[in-house]
Formats: sequence, structure tokens, C-alpha cells
Amino acid sequence: MSLIVQKFGGTSVGSIERIENVARKVISTKAQGNDVIVVVSAMAGETDRLKALADEVGADSSSDHQREIDVLLSTGEQVSIALLSMMLKKLGCRARSYTGGQIRILTDDAHTKARIQEIDTEKIGSDLAADKVVVVAGFQGVDSSGNITTFGRGASDLTAVAIAGVMAAAECRIYTDVDGVYTTDPNVVEGARCLESLTFEEMLELASLGSKVLHTRAVELASKYKLPIRVLSSFNESPGTLITSEEELDMERPMISGIAMTRDEAKLTVLGVDDVPGIAHKILGPISAANIEVDMIVQNVAADNSTDFTFTVARADYEKSMDILKKVAKDIEAREFTGDNKIAKLSLVGVGMRSHAGVASKMFETLADESINIQMISTSEIKISVVIAEKYLELAARALHSKFDLSAIADSEQE
Amino acid sequence: MSLIVQKFGGTSVGSIERIENVARKVISTKAQGNDVIVVVSAMAGETDRLKALADEVGADSSSDHQREIDVLLSTGEQVSIALLSMMLKKLGCRARSYTGGQIRILTDDAHTKARIQEIDTEKIGSDLAADKVVVVAGFQGVDSSGNITTFGRGASDLTAVAIAGVMAAAECRIYTDVDGVYTTDPNVVEGARCLESLTFEEMLELASLGSKVLHTRAVELASKYKLPIRVLSSFNESPGTLITSEEELDMERPMISGIAMTRDEAKLTVLGVDDVPGIAHKILGPISAANIEVDMIVQNVAADNSTDFTFTVARADYEKSMDILKKVAKDIEAREFTGDNKIAKLSLVGVGMRSHAGVASKMFETLADESINIQMISTSEIKISVVIAEKYLELAARALHSKFDLSAIADSEQE
Repeated sequence: MSLIVQKFGGTSVGSIERIENVARKVISTKAQGNDVIVVVSAMAGETDRLKALADEVGADSSSDHQREIDVLLSTGEQVSIALLSMMLKKLGCRARSYTGGQIRILTDDAHTKARIQEIDTEKIGSDLAADKVVVVAGFQGVDSSGNITTFGRGASDLTAVAIAGVMAAAECRIYTDVDGVYTTDPNVVEGARCLESLTFEEMLELASLGSKVLHTRAVELASKYKLPIRVLSSFNESPGTLITSEEELDMERPMISGIAMTRDEAKLTVLGVDDVPGIAHKILGPISAANIEVDMIVQNVAADNSTDFTFTVARADYEKSMDILKKVAKDIEAREFTGDNKIAKLSLVGVGMRSHAGVASKMFETLADESINIQMISTSEIKISVVIAEKYLELAARALHSKFDLSAIADSEQE
Repeated sequence: MSLIVQKFGGTSVGSIERIENVARKVISTKAQGNDVIVVVSAMAGETDRLKALADEVGADSSSDHQREIDVLLSTGEQVSIALLSMMLKKLGCRARSYTGGQIRILTDDAHTKARIQEIDTEKIGSDLAADKVVVVAGFQGVDSSGNITTFGRGASDLTAVAIAGVMAAAECRIYTDVDGVYTTDPNVVEGARCLESLTFEEMLELASLGSKVLHTRAVELASKYKLPIRVLSSFNESPGTLITSEEELDMERPMISGIAMTRDEAKLTVLGVDDVPGIAHKILGPISAANIEVDMIVQNVAADNSTDFTFTVARADYEKSMDILKKVAKDIEAREFTGDNKIAKLSLVGVGMRSHAGVASKMFETLADESINIQMISTSEIKISVVIAEKYLELAARALHSKFDLSAIADSEQE
């Protein structure tokens, strides 16, 4: 008998009819001889409704208000666990609901962005032993003083993976409204294909780059536990995408798994500054002090011993960053500074890159063939990212998807 | 410094604007030098919305379902405490919210109708000492295994009184959408007047007879603690009605405090049965076995050694009761049996009755003057109830209200 954790998001529990659909999936998993723990989010729209109430009150970001935001938002998942448990019982399946606090998902006291420290396995274990399905509210826990905490938006994934981890589950299944993880955005590239499998590292690169299928912290945690995650649809029977350790995927991996796109960035460049130690800190220090997060950073040394320095920030921070840079450029006597918020980032991701040479040059060649100018390049072990003009993003994605043959099922995935 | 408990019902916290109004009332009480604990209900409509979801699932009355009903319904009050606490903080008043479970309102495990066993005063005490307003979710607690329990509809009053009792509060103020407790229903009698004060016993008689201002169990509990309750409006500054022990109301009490009306009863009569021991049990035993509650019971012995036996039940149970009686009447060889579901009950309530003779005869005379036939009479120490045809109910109420001079402020209330 295996233990399976199943997590259903807000869309999957968005109505009583859909909750019945969820209950049937749970019962079917149980009927296959598994123990089942279910983690659910708030019904679609509920968290927004509650946030709107808090906004109407005029809640601010003080810690006192954040404590009450958690008391408020955590009710959304509590409604879902009660309804799903009732539905399971009505369909003849023994079940029992738990809030984060009841099962004692112990967290730190950082309200609205708490981190899990410990999970009490006693109640879960004894309910499973009594042949009950355990239904747990996602997204929430309690601190050591018994205050309700939440983990931030979309973090029910994290609850599911954490519980699956401590209970040593065989698999954690994350049900969504898509069929799984795609090679790239199907809205942009017609031939985009649902992947059969991915490594944790690939998923992390794809998630952080805008494929919002899985919560990043959940993937990190699964990777730590070496816990296989399966992303699949609530609304059909397709097998979805398995995300696991590279060693579990013992077939040869395809060179490239997917193409990620990000549109919400902006680029800032300081031209002609002295190439001396400390210059990067002088430029980025004030940006960081303003709580602006920097993504890509590129610096090139020119022949005249001066340097050009470019970095990207979230597009929402563009104006603020330009204001800061204006002062900084003057202080460090830069020749000039420029900015561009009409850029986009495109990344190729794949663990196969490690053993395949020539991925980068093939990428650059493809873009050149389409006359797309590359403005910045950044690479990691399993990823190559380029910044290009936003208007070319879709063209680039289609060309690369085709060139790297991502629409075809790879040999390794046919087995 | 006195401790005041303020309880606000669903209508009083029905919107963010109204929650602001509540917060200002709390702050005003605090500004008068009091410590304050606030108990709130779910926002108006919320409990019905949640119940409709449970109905859509198809929840039944099994204990498993009832456990989940409590998990579901308790979220309504949790939303209210979060919003009120935020509002208080926004208006500059330190506050902290607690669910029933967090403050540890310990109950038995009778889901949806649990009884309070114990309240932990530690958190409340330390917050009050730190000059914070304590905001508590009404209607809910936890059993000894940490399962969420609720006390039944309208039972936030009970939470307020129980907390006020264990914390030895000076007064428990129950805010509603009416100005206080009236001499009778103002929709029926134009001259109906808001009472300045009432004894616990009078309030119990009035509450159980249909004046749905206060939860009966809350009044009983307040009486046990000798805790003064004040019923007043959320929407104006009128002083409301004080309900306390008779000895606290050291003025002479008016003869009659109020007139209560109940329309939802039906009357059943068995005529001509042998006047032998056990006959009452033979008639009412099967009724009680069918879980039907009997209200008034009247039995008269006729000259021929036979007796007529009459009782009233809730109107909803009328048909079922008639079916049962049909069989019973045959078994006991009654001459005949009849029923009437077009009756109403009217009661005069007042502790002054104890020391004033002639209340009953004055009541009967008034009804006779209006040609209203009295079908049944039942009396207790501070109450006289009559059953009359429903069509005469309003006429009777107006005539008695006038005859007993209830529109005038009594001497004792003018001080």
C-alpha cells in the first residue's frame, strides 16, 4: 500500500460540482489500494473576496494587520476542507478535515509569508491507520503561540509537498487546470507539447521564469525530500508531467526540455564608467536599498578601460530604478545611462545541456536567421537566457521550439 | 476600571461601514476608562451562504457530517474578528482577535449544539493587561480533542455572557438592530415601549415566548453569574434595556413588564376519556416518543368521572400529532378527539405579579370585554398564558397593553 498526497487548487474546488469531481478522484486513488491525504486551496474567487474586504477596511502592511490578514484568509481553505470531507463521506468514503492549526503545521511567526518548521504526524498517521482520507487545508499553519499563519499566495502546493515529505509519500500529485508542464506557452507556440517528465532543476528554472504551474518553494522542498511530484489536470485523465530527481529519470534526457518567457522585465544600462573595483556595488547598492530586486546582470570591459553595465528589474520597478540611476550615474561620472522597458527574456532550459555542446550557438544562429538582435546573454548550467526586444518574443519562441524539435516526442519519452 | 463585554450580531457587522461603526463604539467604551472584550457574530447572510453550500453537498445529520458543518460555519465568525481587529487597529486602538479554539473555549463534543465547559482566561487577561481590546469569535469553541464545535444558531450571545462571567465583567452589552426589549411587539401594538429594565426571570419568560432578542441559554447563564446584561441598538445611542437580578432593581417593579405572543402553536384535545391514573402518560407518551415537544397541558375533570385532555405543540408538528392521536384515542376509548391549528398564545409576564393580586382576573375581564373566548389557561409564578383564536391575537394584545398601562413609563422607571 502506497501513500499518495493529492493537492487540488482553487479552480478544481470552485463549485460543489467540482468538489464532487475531486472527491471521485480521491476515492478512485483509494480504490487502487492507496492511502490518501488531500490538500485543498480556497474555492476560486474566495481569497480575492476576502482580500477585497481587508482592502476595504484599509489594512496596511504592519505586523498587527498581517496577523489579522492571516486569520481572515485562512478561512477560505477551511471552507474547502469541510465541504470536501462532507462530500467524501456522502460518497461513502471515511474522511476527516484538519486546518493547518489543528494538524499542527508549525511555522515561524512571519505572517502572510511564514515558513513551515515542523509537522505533527500523529493525527494524520492514526487517521490513515483507521482507513480514513485525511483532508488538510493548504496555505496555512500556526506559530508556536498558536497564532494562525499563512504561506503566501499559491502556497497550498507547499503544504502538500511538506506533508508528503514528512509522511514519506510515494508521490505528491498537484492537480491544476492544465494538463501538465508544457515545452513552452501553448498560447504562443502552436506545437507546444505537454512533457512526460522533468527534473527538479529544470522545473525550478521553468517556474522561476514564469511557468506558473508549481510554486517554486514547493519544488525546492520536493527536491530536498527527493519526493516525486506529478502535475496533472483535475478535469481529465491524462497522466500529466512527472517531476523527479535526475537519477530516477534514468533514460537519456532530451537536450532541451522547455522554453520559458518573461515579459515583465525592464533593462537599465550605465555606459562608460571607470572599470575599477566596487563599481558594481556603487550602481546596484542604491537599487537594492530601495527594495528593488535585480534579475540579470551583465558587465563588459571596453578597450579604453571603461565599462558598460546592464541589469534588469521587474517592469513595475522601472521608473523608480531610472530615478535612482539618474543620481548614481552622476555620482560615478558615467558617460550616460539608458533604459528600456520594452524588452522580454527568453530562456532555454534542459539538463541535457550539460552533456550536449553547441546548444548556445544553435540558439544564437536561430535568432540571427530571424534577424532578432540579442541584447543580453546570461547562462547557467542548465539554462541559457537572452534579452530581446519584446516585439520579437513570440517569433523567437516559435523559431526555437521548431529548431530544437520540441514538438516531437523525444526517444526517451516514447518508452 | 471596569471590564465591559460588548457583543455585536450579524446585522451590526454586516458591512465594512458597519464594522467601522462597531469599532467606534468599542473605542468609545474604552475611552470611558473601561477594559473591553468584543464578541462578534458572522456578517449578516454569511452563515446562510455557508449552510447553502453544505445543503448543496447534501450534508445529513450524522455526527461525521456535523463535525464538518462546525468546521464550515465557524469560518463566518473568524472573518468578522479579523476585519474588526484590523479596523480597530486602523483607528488607533490596539486589538487582537481569537477564534473560539485559540482562546480555548472548551466544550463537549456535541457538534452544532455544543455546551461550554471551561474558558481559559490567560490570553484574555494578559491582552487586557497590555491595554488591548480582545476580539473573540462568537458561537464556537473546541472539544478536548481539538475539534471545532459550535453552539447553535444565535449563540454568540452565549459566548459573550460566558466570557463576561468567567472574567467577572461589570456588564455584558448585547447590541442588536432594535432599541432593547419592548413591552410587546411594536409591529402589533403602536404604544409598545422599550423597557428600561427587566429581571432575568422576566427575560427568560419573554425570550421563551417569542421575543427573540436574547438567546435563552445566555440569559440563564447570566442569571447564574448574576451578570447584568444590557440589550441595546448598534445604530443609535439609546441606553437600551438592562436585565439583571431582582435585588439589583431595588425599586418597586411594575406589575406587568411585557406581553409575549406566539403564533406557531396548535392545540389538540381528547374528549371523554376515563379519569384514571396514567391517562396523561398514555396520551403524551407516543407524542414524546415521536420527538414532538409539548408546550401547554390542561386537564379538567368532568362530572361523569370522565375527563377532557388538551395540549399544544409546535404548529409544524400538528399533522404528525393528529396522526398519532388518532391511534391513541382509539386505544384509550376516548369519545372523540379534535385539533385546531388556528390558535395563538398570549402571555403577560411580570415579577410584580407575585405581590399584586388580581392580575389574572383583570386580564380575563379585558378579554371578555372584547368578546374574546379563552380556550386554555396556564399560569406560573410570574406569567399568565392564554390560548385564543389566532384572529383575535392582535386585538387582545392591544387591549391588554392599554388596560395594564404599559405605554406609560412606570414610576419606578422614571427615577
